[in-house]
Amino acid sequence: MNPADGGAGMEAVADWWGTAVSRVAPDVIELRGRPVQELIGRAGFAEVVWLLLRGETPGEREAALLEAALVAGVDHGPHAPSIAVARMAITCGVGLNNAIATGVNLLGDVHGGAGEQCVELLQDVLASGDAAGTVRRWRARDKYLPGFGHRFHTRDPRRDPLLALVDAAAADGVVAGAHVRAAREVEELIAPVPMNVDGATAVIYAELGFPAPLARGLFVLSRSVGILAHAWEESGQGRRNKGPIPPFVQPTHLSPDPPM
Amino acid sequence: MNPADGGAGMEAVADWWGTAVSRVAPDVIELRGRPVQELIGRAGFAEVVWLLLRGETPGEREAALLEAALVAGVDHGPHAPSIAVARMAITCGVGLNNAIATGVNLLGDVHGGAGEQCVELLQDVLASGDAAGTVRRWRARDKYLPGFGHRFHTRDPRRDPLLALVDAAAADGVVAGAHVRAAREVEELIAPVPMNVDGATAVIYAELGFPAPLARGLFVLSRSVGILAHAWEESGQGRRNKGPIPPFVQPTHLSPDPPM
Amino acid sequence: MNPADGGAGMEAVADWWGTAVSRVAPDVIELRGRPVQELIGRAGFAEVVWLLLRGETPGEREAALLEAALVAGVDHGPHAPSIAVARMAITCGVGLNNAIATGVNLLGDVHGGAGEQCVELLQDVLASGDAAGTVRRWRARDKYLPGFGHRFHTRDPRRDPLLALVDAAAADGVVAGAHVRAAREVEELIAPVPMNVDGATAVIYAELGFPAPLARGLFVLSRSVGILAHAWEESGQGRRNKGPIPPFVQPTHLSPDPPM
Amino acid sequence: MNPADGGAGMEAVADWWGTAVSRVAPDVIELRGRPVQELIGRAGFAEVVWLLLRGETPGEREAALLEAALVAGVDHGPHAPSIAVARMAITCGVGLNNAIATGVNLLGDVHGGAGEQCVELLQDVLASGDAAGTVRRWRARDKYLPGFGHRFHTRDPRRDPLLALVDAAAADGVVAGAHVRAAREVEELIAPVPMNVDGATAVIYAELGFPAPLARGLFVLSRSVGILAHAWEESGQGRRNKGPIPPFVQPTHLSPDPPM
Repeated sequence: MNPADGGAGMEAVADWWGTAVSRVAPDVIELRGRPVQELIGRAGFAEVVWLLLRGETPGEREAALLEAALVAGVDHGPHAPSIAVARMAITCGVGLNNAIATGVNLLGDVHGGAGEQCVELLQDVLASGDAAGTVRRWRARDKYLPGFGHRFHTRDPRRDPLLALVDAAAADGVVAGAHVRAAREVEELIAPVPMNVDGATAVIYAELGFPAPLARGLFVLSRSVGILAHAWEESGQGRRNKGPIPPFVQPTHLSPDPPM
Repeated sequence: MNPADGGAGMEAVADWWGTAVSRVAPDVIELRGRPVQELIGRAGFAEVVWLLLRGETPGEREAALLEAALVAGVDHGPHAPSIAVARMAITCGVGLNNAIATGVNLLGDVHGGAGEQCVELLQDVLASGDAAGTVRRWRARDKYLPGFGHRFHTRDPRRDPLLALVDAAAADGVVAGAHVRAAREVEELIAPVPMNVDGATAVIYAELGFPAPLARGLFVLSRSVGILAHAWEESGQGRRNKGPIPPFVQPTHLSPDPPM
Repeated sequence: MNPADGGAGMEAVADWWGTAVSRVAPDVIELRGRPVQELIGRAGFAEVVWLLLRGETPGEREAALLEAALVAGVDHGPHAPSIAVARMAITCGVGLNNAIATGVNLLGDVHGGAGEQCVELLQDVLASGDAAGTVRRWRARDKYLPGFGHRFHTRDPRRDPLLALVDAAAADGVVAGAHVRAAREVEELIAPVPMNVDGATAVIYAELGFPAPLARGLFVLSRSVGILAHAWEESGQGRRNKGPIPPFVQPTHLSPDPPM
Repeated sequence: MNPADGGAGMEAVADWWGTAVSRVAPDVIELRGRPVQELIGRAGFAEVVWLLLRGETPGEREAALLEAALVAGVDHGPHAPSIAVARMAITCGVGLNNAIATGVNLLGDVHGGAGEQCVELLQDVLASGDAAGTVRRWRARDKYLPGFGHRFHTRDPRRDPLLALVDAAAADGVVAGAHVRAAREVEELIAPVPMNVDGATAVIYAELGFPAPLARGLFVLSRSVGILAHAWEESGQGRRNKGPIPPFVQPTHLSPDPPM
């Protein structure tokens, strides 16, 4: 058929897929209006992440803060379900991309959602002006306060360096500092449980003006690095159908209450 | 816009998504030309699987053979990576469908592909008329002969009942019996390693005339049942972020050769 | 290392993966306590689905109702995102299992969750004894009432045959009939918007005693059949990187409000 | 149970999950032996990607080359199946992470594998010392030469800026330059079909010493940015169950040859 015959139908289909993120035409790729060839070799990775999500480029200090948050979450070893399943996937005969997708698929509300929920918590503290009341309300709903405490670390080693960066940025007026103050207020209220990596990165994302759901989206970009590294390492070890349990360990037959 | 303006462009888009599997129009759903309301309550699940894949309905005995193969593969416990990852996924705060997808995603060439490869092996035996030579060629490429042997069972308990069904069907002329004879010939050549569930179901799929890749496709439908059952059970146990290792076991820091 | 050295640690790891769904030991596979070889060739697919999810086998009439619901949802053509993405996936060079997983991954709250939500709606009607009030409350939360209405069909062709089967089962005392009565009461309240396939299958699942989340789980098993059939058909057509838009249609560059 | 009782069994389980990528112990996270707190705010994203994959940190110029390649591939609009399916997924009621996983799952051999295959092609040219013969052999296997030509662009706008960066790096001795020379030799042989983004990034990855499969792994990290940005944009537009076709376009019922 002749594309010129397309008319209104064609246009409607193209509109259905319209986007402000990128424009692709023969020999043209624009990302948020910027020709891709102007970005390659000039814009950093964090800067381009920002551009695609927000339609503008960040200042240098803002990009550096974002990059620090992206670096902080890359890996937490095979204890993390997202990492373990990617390692298992690669031994099952699927592509490296499928293994990474398998890991990313697990970064759900519980595993990957704490940053998003912590941004909401901080916004709630700021909107109400009542940290104690906010914490009480959130704890009544769920014993886990997102962004605080860690089942493995008494003090998450990623907390201090991240907060130091936010403090410096706030001191220099790069960010306003309201969210980091709110987070510290919460931390004091629930002492001695300290902020964890989700909390400290949530502070950064919130200070930089990212809406809450993007805290999860950005964590996905970050953790994908570790997922890739682990899947790649496992692919070199020759295992087949790696289960969670070494082959010589027998599972027992438990009888928990039947599920229904 | 007015859909009536669509013209050739619209038609081209609709053609791009044309299919012989089903026709959906207002108040009409036809599966391979059969109105869905004629199937509901009359056609069995296996029969509809056959219809959608092949465009026709099977005889009763053929449908029963297919159903037996679908039943045989539903579960192999959390030793199987596909089962384990679905259990892990559900504790990470994703939907039940996402947990099932995670498990299915792992049924790759190694974990879910043996049935497909075994159909090819049997076709190779039949095409060459030389079982011994075929086995030699396949073993030169890979020490695992698809469909034979099991790392866990000395004799897979699913082998005998599946083969008994094929034998009965062959005796009654429901299937030709060439593939089951080929499979037994291979089994004798590599004795005492017996056929496993992938081999016995591959025999059934091949006897029924399914092309090799559908042996994997049909296994996916079968194993999805166990994946669902395990994800559902896990969802009732309240764990969060279930990793492969109980929280009190520390992973050690190995130093295998770096991956590159 | 010697497995016999395992001791308590080993046991703890095995317990971490304990399950009541299946028991796998050398040469033994039991599904809910039933040796798999007793099921192959004797139990139907729907019966085994029931067994794995609930730990017991259904009566013949109950299994037939479940099977009818599983048949009803198998496909709705490439208009359905779950079907379309599986077709797209297979042209990108991934395995058939990965294509199916991609489709299943989209059966989320909006695309695959209406059955689950409709079971909850019906339970709500029955618990409150007030259909009108329940519908009012649900509609205040969301304009879509799960299980009723269809953007494509004025009357979903799957409604009548499914309800006829439930009515017959209720008349014979196979099921109690409370949920089908509740569903009809809702349907009258919002006339002329009729029940759709999600509503009619939700009635069946609820009458059979499945908890709400399994309405989604069972829909996944059902729709996987269509997803497989479409991915398989597409794999025979030789396209590469099939996008949503035929290659000759140019997307336009819209400028909706930036996302943040 | 008392973890101290674990003994050899426990150790074996921990070994089963041993890794050289990271070490996690209470209050300790080391990435390839580097405490994470030394990396946060000091190491760039590309540098950490390199560290996790290779166990060492790159020089500044090498990290910049890697970053440029990561930037180049972030997006190609909703024509790309990986982007389109992520947009569709988010309208189906799944998490942002599930939408990204859906997109990444499609970066298979055909959609995301050209970079990997192009690294192999260039290695083949260098190993044989015969570009013309290598191209002939590859073309006999497949009419598509990975890394060259584009169905949409006559000249991919990402080619020139990427090659300019490699040329500068080779001129300064940062990389050896053999792979870029091989790629240009191939380009001349098949003129006027130019290198595309997969080819130009493959050159960079190969010059930097990444093995071929990581060309795909790194592309996954890159494209995830665009997948996230599109899924996020779509989430703000309120569509439900977005299919490939606008709702007012009717699919036609084609009858291609049945698939089997």
